[in-house]
Amino acid sequence: MTVQVTAGAGLEEVVATASQICYLDGQKGVLAYCGYDIHDLARLTTFEEVCYLLWHRQLPTRVELGDLQTELATARPLPDPIVRMMCSLPPGRTMDSVRTLTSALAHYDCEAGDESLTASRRKALRLTAQIGTLVATLGRLAGGGAPVQPDPALGHAANFLYMLTGERPSTLASRALDVALILHADHELNASTFAARVAAATLTDIYSTIVAGVAALKGPLHGGANAEVMKMLTAIGEGADDEQVIATVRGMLTRKEKIPGFGHRVYRTEDPRATHLRQMSRDLGREAGNMRWFEMSQCIEALMKEEKEIDANVDFYSASVYHTLGIAADLFTPIFVVSRVAGWTAHVLEQYANNRLIRPRAEYVGPEYPQKLVRLEAR
Amino acid sequence: MTVQVTAGAGLEEVVATASQICYLDGQKGVLAYCGYDIHDLARLTTFEEVCYLLWHRQLPTRVELGDLQTELATARPLPDPIVRMMCSLPPGRTMDSVRTLTSALAHYDCEAGDESLTASRRKALRLTAQIGTLVATLGRLAGGGAPVQPDPALGHAANFLYMLTGERPSTLASRALDVALILHADHELNASTFAARVAAATLTDIYSTIVAGVAALKGPLHGGANAEVMKMLTAIGEGADDEQVIATVRGMLTRKEKIPGFGHRVYRTEDPRATHLRQMSRDLGREAGNMRWFEMSQCIEALMKEEKEIDANVDFYSASVYHTLGIAADLFTPIFVVSRVAGWTAHVLEQYANNRLIRPRAEYVGPEYPQKLVRLEAR
Repeated sequence: MTVQVTAGAGLEEVVATASQICYLDGQKGVLAYCGYDIHDLARLTTFEEVCYLLWHRQLPTRVELGDLQTELATARPLPDPIVRMMCSLPPGRTMDSVRTLTSALAHYDCEAGDESLTASRRKALRLTAQIGTLVATLGRLAGGGAPVQPDPALGHAANFLYMLTGERPSTLASRALDVALILHADHELNASTFAARVAAATLTDIYSTIVAGVAALKGPLHGGANAEVMKMLTAIGEGADDEQVIATVRGMLTRKEKIPGFGHRVYRTEDPRATHLRQMSRDLGREAGNMRWFEMSQCIEALMKEEKEIDANVDFYSASVYHTLGIAADLFTPIFVVSRVAGWTAHVLEQYANNRLIRPRAEYVGPEYPQKLVRLEAR
Repeated sequence: MTVQVTAGAGLEEVVATASQICYLDGQKGVLAYCGYDIHDLARLTTFEEVCYLLWHRQLPTRVELGDLQTELATARPLPDPIVRMMCSLPPGRTMDSVRTLTSALAHYDCEAGDESLTASRRKALRLTAQIGTLVATLGRLAGGGAPVQPDPALGHAANFLYMLTGERPSTLASRALDVALILHADHELNASTFAARVAAATLTDIYSTIVAGVAALKGPLHGGANAEVMKMLTAIGEGADDEQVIATVRGMLTRKEKIPGFGHRVYRTEDPRATHLRQMSRDLGREAGNMRWFEMSQCIEALMKEEKEIDANVDFYSASVYHTLGIAADLFTPIFVVSRVAGWTAHVLEQYANNRLIRPRAEYVGPEYPQKLVRLEAR
């Protein structure tokens, strides 16, 4: 008889798999993709290089990157039925739309039904390209615009902003989104990646696994948190001074309300991603001539550090970054999908390549077995 | 510093949560829902009673069952946009359609956006009702028929067959499907239920969790196996005699091909669900005047027992049961969804009620940290 190991309710500190993708040291605040420190990646690479890194475990040469950029750009346009379906869905529930339309993309993949590892690798690339277009177009339609065709001359981040706004973004804006996409691309066995790997371990197709990832990311304890941060900032209001900000947050703390954007299951130090997003928030505020969202964020961060000794996480400054880029809060979690799909696909391909069904056990704590079954007539 | 527990790659024997829903003893071959043995449930209850049991942890009185039946029957009709979307999807990839359309149902739920536990309970009921209609209508359209409106006078199983075929099913046929739905309704932390709970633990909405479940169930190592069994039986052919059947399966074993429908991660004895499906397969074959699918299955089962000492699982006899009911193999895994949605929703509601984010760790085995990052120009 096998021995059972009882884990905490959240599988805390349970090592569920070995992986070559993400190195995460929560004590030291280290995050690295395939050995490369997130700080170096954020400073020196693009999202496309990071995709290559996550999928191939090494950074691309210039030729390899050129090929990847061409493949991604070629895969960007959405199939017509997807655009029609997008227009037919009720507006306003953007993450529901991302989930439904990502699922629908599977029907139109040119290799649908081919579940070989090589076909799945190509699907990973198409998914990454098309989800960018999908989210940008959703945002475009929500703003009352008509879909903008992708521009193959632009990189993934710049093209996203172009499809969203219809205008070529500034260099700083493009770079800010590019860095945000790099920072969000992977994070080891976070809940959505784990959901995707659990699905992958049944050898379901890669679209299904990414839909499972989207489904999990939507939750307010996961990807949904960045939109919650913006809701809080908006509720406080741009016009509030620091005293009002502090009073509001203190009030929330007194009422034991959750302050979104703080704390992390793994990090015991500052989330290394927050460092870059804080800087981006400042730089974008300066370019936009409105530092208020950044300052308000900084004020809340200092208060939380003082009162709760708790650090800002990746979600906290991404809110003011995206807001200053002119992006509606509804699109914050979908943009997380645009980035994280790179990590999800990398993890799913890794799971496929060396698979074992993921099937834990539950401790039964319900009505005692066996219950005597009384027929309906006598109940 | 917290201590890490290294689990097997598949979280074998790791207790990931406590649950009041399903008691499973793989050594003794015991399966029970909320304390009620699966053999009693299969003999003495209906799928609707089992839904009530899974959701409320006790069997319903006649009044409670009457209310549930009314609520389920009322919720059966699909929103018009879902039927239009169904008609617009490319035919032939039925589980993809189930996934996309289940996701799309969320957009039209009358309580969309209300993530309270009470609203989620009502959504669980609507999901269970509508997924039945969705799968039956998909099967109906695939067979070239027009959608059949649900009949509120029929139970869940009988109405499913009616919507699928356009004809009132026989008592035996209705009961066979009813029993199959009971047997498949829950199975503790199987991969799809676990995927749904991982998603639920981010506090994502219940539709998202069920979509994650569908995504995982599609895999050939999970729900997809029943369709694989039928593919094997069809490939052997109704005309084959026992010697030919044995030769074919021996050949597969020699070539180390997987024989679908055998073995189980948890059971070390006969899967108690197989007992009932075997009987149903025999009874339905007798009623249809064609025992060949049953006999062929029995022949393979005996061979596998003899050669590999391995037992048939729930998928093995469900194939010949569904086939004899006149159901196309494409619909076998979707019918698994029709049943398992009851268990998924029960588990998700249990997770919501006492939640902790499910977030294990990975052991990093990739390129050593830190790698020196050489800029693109110099690579």
